[in-house]
Amino acid sequence: MEDVIIRYFFEPEVKNGILIEGLPGVGNVGKLAAEHMLDVLGAKKFASLYSRYLPPQVLINDGGKIRLVSQDLHVYRGEKQDVVFLTGDYQGMSQEGQYELAMATLDVVEKLGIKKIYTLGGYGSGKMEDEPRVLGAVTDEKMRKELEKAGVEFSAGEPSSGIVGASGLLLGLGELRGMRGACLMGETSGYFIDPKGANALISILSKLLNIEIDTSSLEEKVVEIEELARHVKEMEDAEGKGDRQDLSYIG
Amino acid sequence: MEDVIIRYFFEPEVKNGILIEGLPGVGNVGKLAAEHMLDVLGAKKFASLYSRYLPPQVLINDGGKIRLVSQDLHVYRGEKQDVVFLTGDYQGMSQEGQYELAMATLDVVEKLGIKKIYTLGGYGSGKMEDEPRVLGAVTDEKMRKELEKAGVEFSAGEPSSGIVGASGLLLGLGELRGMRGACLMGETSGYFIDPKGANALISILSKLLNIEIDTSSLEEKVVEIEELARHVKEMEDAEGKGDRQDLSYIG
Amino acid sequence: MEDVIIRYFFEPEVKNGILIEGLPGVGNVGKLAAEHMLDVLGAKKFASLYSRYLPPQVLINDGGKIRLVSQDLHVYRGEKQDVVFLTGDYQGMSQEGQYELAMATLDVVEKLGIKKIYTLGGYGSGKMEDEPRVLGAVTDEKMRKELEKAGVEFSAGEPSSGIVGASGLLLGLGELRGMRGACLMGETSGYFIDPKGANALISILSKLLNIEIDTSSLEEKVVEIEELARHVKEMEDAEGKGDRQDLSYIG
Amino acid sequence: MEDVIIRYFFEPEVKNGILIEGLPGVGNVGKLAAEHMLDVLGAKKFASLYSRYLPPQVLINDGGKIRLVSQDLHVYRGEKQDVVFLTGDYQGMSQEGQYELAMATLDVVEKLGIKKIYTLGGYGSGKMEDEPRVLGAVTDEKMRKELEKAGVEFSAGEPSSGIVGASGLLLGLGELRGMRGACLMGETSGYFIDPKGANALISILSKLLNIEIDTSSLEEKVVEIEELARHVKEMEDAEGKGDRQDLSYIG
Repeated sequence: MEDVIIRYFFEPEVKNGILIEGLPGVGNVGKLAAEHMLDVLGAKKFASLYSRYLPPQVLINDGGKIRLVSQDLHVYRGEKQDVVFLTGDYQGMSQEGQYELAMATLDVVEKLGIKKIYTLGGYGSGKMEDEPRVLGAVTDEKMRKELEKAGVEFSAGEPSSGIVGASGLLLGLGELRGMRGACLMGETSGYFIDPKGANALISILSKLLNIEIDTSSLEEKVVEIEELARHVKEMEDAEGKGDRQDLSYIG
Repeated sequence: MEDVIIRYFFEPEVKNGILIEGLPGVGNVGKLAAEHMLDVLGAKKFASLYSRYLPPQVLINDGGKIRLVSQDLHVYRGEKQDVVFLTGDYQGMSQEGQYELAMATLDVVEKLGIKKIYTLGGYGSGKMEDEPRVLGAVTDEKMRKELEKAGVEFSAGEPSSGIVGASGLLLGLGELRGMRGACLMGETSGYFIDPKGANALISILSKLLNIEIDTSSLEEKVVEIEELARHVKEMEDAEGKGDRQDLSYIG
Repeated sequence: MEDVIIRYFFEPEVKNGILIEGLPGVGNVGKLAAEHMLDVLGAKKFASLYSRYLPPQVLINDGGKIRLVSQDLHVYRGEKQDVVFLTGDYQGMSQEGQYELAMATLDVVEKLGIKKIYTLGGYGSGKMEDEPRVLGAVTDEKMRKELEKAGVEFSAGEPSSGIVGASGLLLGLGELRGMRGACLMGETSGYFIDPKGANALISILSKLLNIEIDTSSLEEKVVEIEELARHVKEMEDAEGKGDRQDLSYIG
Repeated sequence: MEDVIIRYFFEPEVKNGILIEGLPGVGNVGKLAAEHMLDVLGAKKFASLYSRYLPPQVLINDGGKIRLVSQDLHVYRGEKQDVVFLTGDYQGMSQEGQYELAMATLDVVEKLGIKKIYTLGGYGSGKMEDEPRVLGAVTDEKMRKELEKAGVEFSAGEPSSGIVGASGLLLGLGELRGMRGACLMGETSGYFIDPKGANALISILSKLLNIEIDTSSLEEKVVEIEELARHVKEMEDAEGKGDRQDLSYIG
């Protein structure tokens, strides 16, 4: 079989397009942000990618219907620019798989004339942050100013290990094809699925893309998660483990 | 070498065909059920699949004759419909292997005009069940009614991890080729090879396919295994570990 | 690169040829036997197989000269039949590698008209044996009589796990090409490199091939290893661990 | 995607060329030496190799600019001979990757007419050495004299495990294409990144290539590392662990 099977539901026309990637990762920050945006914007799924580099697994919905794990492409037709979202159940499961899936996505979006990429990720700080920062990295230093104006911070040599996985590869391999882009990393404890970090990402993207995005449903999730975190902390205190802000003891 | 080598013993003609998969898995429930059925029905082996994604191993029979590990296809010519059984020594040993072997099987059965698939598996409950249920998942919600009438239960979101391996992939990849199907999962403790779970599967399939299947030899195995389980429990009680129904302590 | 690179030193003509495989394995019994035979018989190396499924490693001889790890083919021109020996530094390092290397060897020997294969291995019994048996397994039950006459034993269902690695695969894959063969397994403790088990194999092969093979140099190694084993046992006795024949406590 | 993607910045002309490899390894001795040399000599990067056998990772520089991990080729145009340097962020991450990347490099340098290879590595001795030796291994025993004259030592059967990774493979696979070469291994404790071992390599290469190489910046690093090692030793002594030369307790 081919390394990646692409199934089109329709062939979209895209003008002035941007790719936004939000696959599972640290705190699922990128996935949460991308899925929230495509949901609120009413983006339409136009293709699914299946691959022998994804787990050999089907998922089951509440009606008992199965669905092969996939990565999916949605398109949002904006006023001045269109956005293609890449989301999915999993990242590629091996390093070869990471490369093959990134290349397959780039093949698709290159054909759509897309030249700009934002990849979304989490930056695990080990702490719960009230005001999570959004860190950036770019393929082209000329992009920094625009991002800094929107609130993205650049911190020399952070993350020190670079960016591992699809968020890095799509930019690195995209650059070899003449695409420009940035990785936006929402600060997150890394211990919970983190809608707060996702919210921080959306607020930046909303400025960069000049689109209003309703985040009220995401903010409800923020409240839920904060209650969960408070609860964990109370149990800890009751056990006499003191008043720690650092959550690295969870899980 | 090719990823999968297919050796045909004869080229069967199949009318109105169904694929039933029963490869090794949880409690070997699916394998036991499929092997019992093809045995009792006198199905004929028409092809073997060898693959570099199976272990590099030969098995030895009592006469000292070796046999390369394989997955095998048998055909049963029924009155109204024919059945092709997929059984074997192993599932693919890596995720790539799982995909390649499922694709190779689908290539074969697609050529035979097969459009419907039942995959058989076990659903590990961690307990010995007197009356094991059979859970179902479908590629198409229209299939639910027919299955429920035959006694299959649907439980929202179960199994929560979806279905991993050949039983999931054949359905997921088959759907991409326009095939419909269901996975039938016989409840089993997961600690023993479990003919009782297999029996529950056969009883359902017998209704779905409208074929009589003699299960007396399988029921003898049920008695043997129940004696083994009782014996284990008695030893436990003698050691004062009490009266547990849960067998999760058996390694 | 190709999965396997074959470098020919010369193209041998082979009449009435037999392949004998002796790659590293349990007690290195097969490797020792095959290397001893090709040495004593003055067989000539005619090809080396290099592969990305072997370790990325070069070995260094006493003169400081490096050599890429390989599997090697030697040919012995006998009176009535010729013998091709397969030996090497390693077996394939993954299951895919095992298949690819076995297929590549079969490609070579099939072109030489070879239709018969003996693979050599060790059968780990966990004990030091004074008179190690040689167990057999065959691709064709008609071969049993001839082997039994030469002293090979057949024990129903042994080894119970079948044969893993090149010794199994060459026979299993060879059979798919119409080749016949047998695996000869010299009994060995499995804890030492075992020239005694190798000697037992050679004594059988000598009868099967009707060739005299001088084993005096191998017998010297037997004495050395027996002294080593006795020494280990004495240390054990001195530590009061008693008089065990079973060496499974040696790491 | 191809296993290795080669991106040329310019196509160099090379006369009488030598390949010098210095990828990450024991003590990073080879990488340090090669990077220092190409830096001091002002060699120019003419190609980068990207591969699915390298980690799926981008690195970030202080300006926030990302860069896909790669192996890189620089060229230095000397008076009598040109030198191509192979350096990089990582070696291939699997054995298949090691082979594919070595083959890709050999394809490039063969086209440039290069027939001679020096690979650089570290030889982990477990001790801090005041005067680290440089051990050698050759593809051709005729090369020994020239190397010994330059100060390389040959020690029968050392390293006993041969040479694993790119330093071995480039020579072993290169020899199959008629290239000659040597591996130079600078002695190193193996516990620190070791500029002293790198310095020893450069001093040898300087003689072999008949090029002056300024090592003052490297010698500053030697002093830093020696202070670090002294500090570790003092802490150890303060904890009463005595006066050990052997650093195998670190790390």
